[in-house]
Amino acid sequence: MKTARVAYEGAIHLAIATDNGIELENGKQVFEEDMVWLPPVEPKTCFALGLNYFDHASELSFHAPEEPLVFLKGTNTFIGHLGVTKRSADVTNMHYECELAVVIGKQADHVSKEHALAYISGYTIANDYAFRDYLENYYRPNLRVKNRDASTPLGPWFVDAEDVPDPMNLKLRTYVNGEVVQEGSTKDMIFDVPTLIAYLSSFMTLNPGDVILTGTPKGTVDTKVGDEVVTEIEGLGQLKNTIVE
Amino acid sequence: MKTARVAYEGAIHLAIATDNGIELENGKQVFEEDMVWLPPVEPKTCFALGLNYFDHASELSFHAPEEPLVFLKGTNTFIGHLGVTKRSADVTNMHYECELAVVIGKQADHVSKEHALAYISGYTIANDYAFRDYLENYYRPNLRVKNRDASTPLGPWFVDAEDVPDPMNLKLRTYVNGEVVQEGSTKDMIFDVPTLIAYLSSFMTLNPGDVILTGTPKGTVDTKVGDEVVTEIEGLGQLKNTIVE
Repeated sequence: MKTARVAYEGAIHLAIATDNGIELENGKQVFEEDMVWLPPVEPKTCFALGLNYFDHASELSFHAPEEPLVFLKGTNTFIGHLGVTKRSADVTNMHYECELAVVIGKQADHVSKEHALAYISGYTIANDYAFRDYLENYYRPNLRVKNRDASTPLGPWFVDAEDVPDPMNLKLRTYVNGEVVQEGSTKDMIFDVPTLIAYLSSFMTLNPGDVILTGTPKGTVDTKVGDEVVTEIEGLGQLKNTIVE
Repeated sequence: MKTARVAYEGAIHLAIATDNGIELENGKQVFEEDMVWLPPVEPKTCFALGLNYFDHASELSFHAPEEPLVFLKGTNTFIGHLGVTKRSADVTNMHYECELAVVIGKQADHVSKEHALAYISGYTIANDYAFRDYLENYYRPNLRVKNRDASTPLGPWFVDAEDVPDPMNLKLRTYVNGEVVQEGSTKDMIFDVPTLIAYLSSFMTLNPGDVILTGTPKGTVDTKVGDEVVTEIEGLGQLKNTIVE
């Protein structure tokens, strides 16, 4: 099942996305032009991975990490499907990052890799924009790279884990203005999803609703004001976003 | 005014701390042994500073940063006054960090240094424990250093900004088992509080309830299981915490 969060007629609703359209929980059909897509989850804590695909690490001239490189995202960063992200005047290189977003479904403390998938409630798509100009700070990645307002589209919807039988074999693709610019597969993660859950839960507790953005493959290029960016993951859908001034 | 959040008789209450004790908002006097102190604020986004005092940076053999080194803290890390923090078996060097915690009171976007203090609702004390073993990771500071469960006591209470006329001239002191081990003053911050608010709000929005942990001065030493650690800030009070296995 695909569950969205939408703003409609003055309130926020859960809604189900089907082949026939968007339906509120009370069964009412809603037209997309009458509603606003919100992030399908509101993470209290959102973890994100740096350099978690071999080809992307080498693209940035970094060696592959020996342990997961995890940082946190602030709640100011999240927006929904069809949202807009600002290319700030101080930035000369801003790129999209198509990422599988994993949503934790139950409290995880010292979970083994073997059991890790059972702690996932579902998945969505993230576009974890990077403002590259500030990458080489003493602390990496600094907040100017990864924590700008509205810089992390999530959505369009949350897909139940049971509908994603093999999360480690999903194609990822990004389109800018309709053209494919990034292609990869979740099977090329350096640290796969079970490893990430085992790693994080080995020294801290993961809680229901926490989200892990699992990194992006090769193919990140500068995007400009006016670009329409679509991040797509096999079986999950397409998340669309526009760059504004 | 000093406002605490306490758990008492099955519920969470706001309470006022006075010279006469703890009083619930309805005027009822509460004995400390009947209640549990909770963090006085529940930050949605909590920022923390690395190396924000010259003497502490040199103590760790780091050069002083040229811009603020800011990272985020997860909500799993916060506990209240008289809480306990675990010294994990994988750790050989764990130290306290007495820090002034600044609470944002209204939305701040491109705020100048001159006006920054007006965006603060108040202050509390933080003890932002560091698990030093993992400091030299490729990404600094990694989550194993700064994001363990219950590793960041906050409290005992929130103090209104109007009761802290000069936040940039407060003595900080940490005691381990009654002995002074760390002493400093907020006047020795590399980036003072107005600079931090101006810096962060120059590229992202600060929201009411966000918290900034402003870094710690020199004097951080390893703490052991059983140690009672008190972090104290002039005019704010004393925050007590115990290390457990």
